[in-house]
Amino acid sequence: MRPRSEFRDTHVSLAHGNGGRLMRELIDEVFARVLENPFLDTTTDAVSLPTPIGEELVVTTDGFTVKPLEFPGGNIGSLAVHGTVNDLAVVGAMPRFMTLSVFVEEGLDIAVLRRTADSLAEAARECGVSVVAGDTKVVGRGECDGIYLSTTGIGFKSSACRFALDRIQVGDRILVSGPVGEHGAAIMLARQEFGFRGDLKSDSASVLKEARALTGIVGLRFMRDPTRGGLATVAHEIAHATGFGIRLVEAHIPVNDAVHSICELLGFDPLYMACEGRIVAVVASDACDAALTALRRVAPAAALIGEIRADGPQVTLETSFGGQRALDELEEDPLPRIC
Amino acid sequence: MRPRSEFRDTHVSLAHGNGGRLMRELIDEVFARVLENPFLDTTTDAVSLPTPIGEELVVTTDGFTVKPLEFPGGNIGSLAVHGTVNDLAVVGAMPRFMTLSVFVEEGLDIAVLRRTADSLAEAARECGVSVVAGDTKVVGRGECDGIYLSTTGIGFKSSACRFALDRIQVGDRILVSGPVGEHGAAIMLARQEFGFRGDLKSDSASVLKEARALTGIVGLRFMRDPTRGGLATVAHEIAHATGFGIRLVEAHIPVNDAVHSICELLGFDPLYMACEGRIVAVVASDACDAALTALRRVAPAAALIGEIRADGPQVTLETSFGGQRALDELEEDPLPRIC
Repeated sequence: MRPRSEFRDTHVSLAHGNGGRLMRELIDEVFARVLENPFLDTTTDAVSLPTPIGEELVVTTDGFTVKPLEFPGGNIGSLAVHGTVNDLAVVGAMPRFMTLSVFVEEGLDIAVLRRTADSLAEAARECGVSVVAGDTKVVGRGECDGIYLSTTGIGFKSSACRFALDRIQVGDRILVSGPVGEHGAAIMLARQEFGFRGDLKSDSASVLKEARALTGIVGLRFMRDPTRGGLATVAHEIAHATGFGIRLVEAHIPVNDAVHSICELLGFDPLYMACEGRIVAVVASDACDAALTALRRVAPAAALIGEIRADGPQVTLETSFGGQRALDELEEDPLPRIC
Repeated sequence: MRPRSEFRDTHVSLAHGNGGRLMRELIDEVFARVLENPFLDTTTDAVSLPTPIGEELVVTTDGFTVKPLEFPGGNIGSLAVHGTVNDLAVVGAMPRFMTLSVFVEEGLDIAVLRRTADSLAEAARECGVSVVAGDTKVVGRGECDGIYLSTTGIGFKSSACRFALDRIQVGDRILVSGPVGEHGAAIMLARQEFGFRGDLKSDSASVLKEARALTGIVGLRFMRDPTRGGLATVAHEIAHATGFGIRLVEAHIPVNDAVHSICELLGFDPLYMACEGRIVAVVASDACDAALTALRRVAPAAALIGEIRADGPQVTLETSFGGQRALDELEEDPLPRIC
């Protein structure tokens, strides 16, 4: 790590985005300093990257507009890394590189930008990812809400490793790696719109170890991280793509007490609330025990929560009272800017 | 191309960003329909891409916040493709894939979003680039100014092909592929802040053919597209990175009459105005004639505009009146949200 920054500006100004000296200083001192790695070169237009021989190149992209920028359990910087890494992890790829595009509002406290960059750098290090290219745009006051980030994740995987919606079959089982809805509920609380606070933390985290635990299981069909729209939305994506029915068992879906209470109180359904550190997996029925055992080694709260049925594209919840109800596809946004 | 869209919504709502049905429809009907290619799959988290054997993977990223979204000569969609492709072209890479992250404001006219997607798709086709992954975030009214885009470009190049700032030597010559400042001036006029209009068009375009013309020249050291901060800023980047002096000859720098007049009138300097379809190249002095000839075949207005000197990191302009003046590094932003 280089010596402490000489950068003394306290707030972002439009001149930090003009391509000149101030922009170079902002990028070098706030971002490049903490993201330092052998590939990052702020003086070039495009960077050359090594590719492992015999592996497939895998790419994903994501935008982040979470409000507030900082919340219990993370901030927009760590969230951006986890979101990107997780999209690679669920297709069985090893995340390796990331690009970072930053939109920042004139007048933003540089300390907030620094904390964002620091958390992003720390999360990237933990996930073994190098941020190899970046871009910064400054927009006027009121034109963007502090910071938006956009990332592209680049990873590699064996071409033998193919998990996809079209591999899912009737009779397959559905697993989840832990309690759902914590990110959504934590953001809701952090906004303080509802006049109370709690100890709830976002589950924002990498799901790399969960994905790796499952990747070795013969019979693994498909993985996805339930983010916007939560578990119910992943279920609808599966139903929509496969034409099969999804049956979930309410009593088996892990929801922590705080999430349950807050949702009850405010009339939200935890099954539609975003997670940012969970994985949903579909596995062949005869591989279910092995998959659950492997998953629980790294995620003790993992659970078998449902199955794939032949009864057409629909999502049904077997309720704790023994009844059945349809889980509709999300129409209105219960909570915008969750990620 | 699939049949005309069934998508009937006229304005963007927060529900178009929630991960549910409306978001899927928006993405499928406005973006995926026109961006269609064998790699794009809106049902997966990350996409596998083929890599040519023996070539280097090259990556770049950019954000776009141009205001207005549509301007003479292009819109934010075509600009995003050109900006991305050009960053790959100037390092000698062949652009191949692109990711697209979209931030869109609640209430935006869907027709504007469609035109953006259409122009982006057309520009990508012209450049031989497939948009392979995307993400859409909807933010509330007033929270972003219509549309921001963020892209990552992925290309490939021979590892023998290495153009970089550290190859530049004293005595090298500086070329530009055409008139400078047209994008900046066109945006300025399009904003109508100054109460008059003109026929000026942005130079927004791919520089692939210019870059390819130069790539074959032995003695090519470095290329860059002068965007934010214009030609003067590229000169400063070279001076800053090499420690050498840059001398530019005002009379040799192509500036079209309309740009000249508008800058004169408003007190701007064309050398600091953004281009989005030009290339600056540094070549060995003994390769200068061959480079200029090759460049003029595809860009007739290309010119030799200066040279690299041993007199320390500074940028000097030999003025049309025979004097010399220092071109200072850009401090205040003359024109935010130019790209």
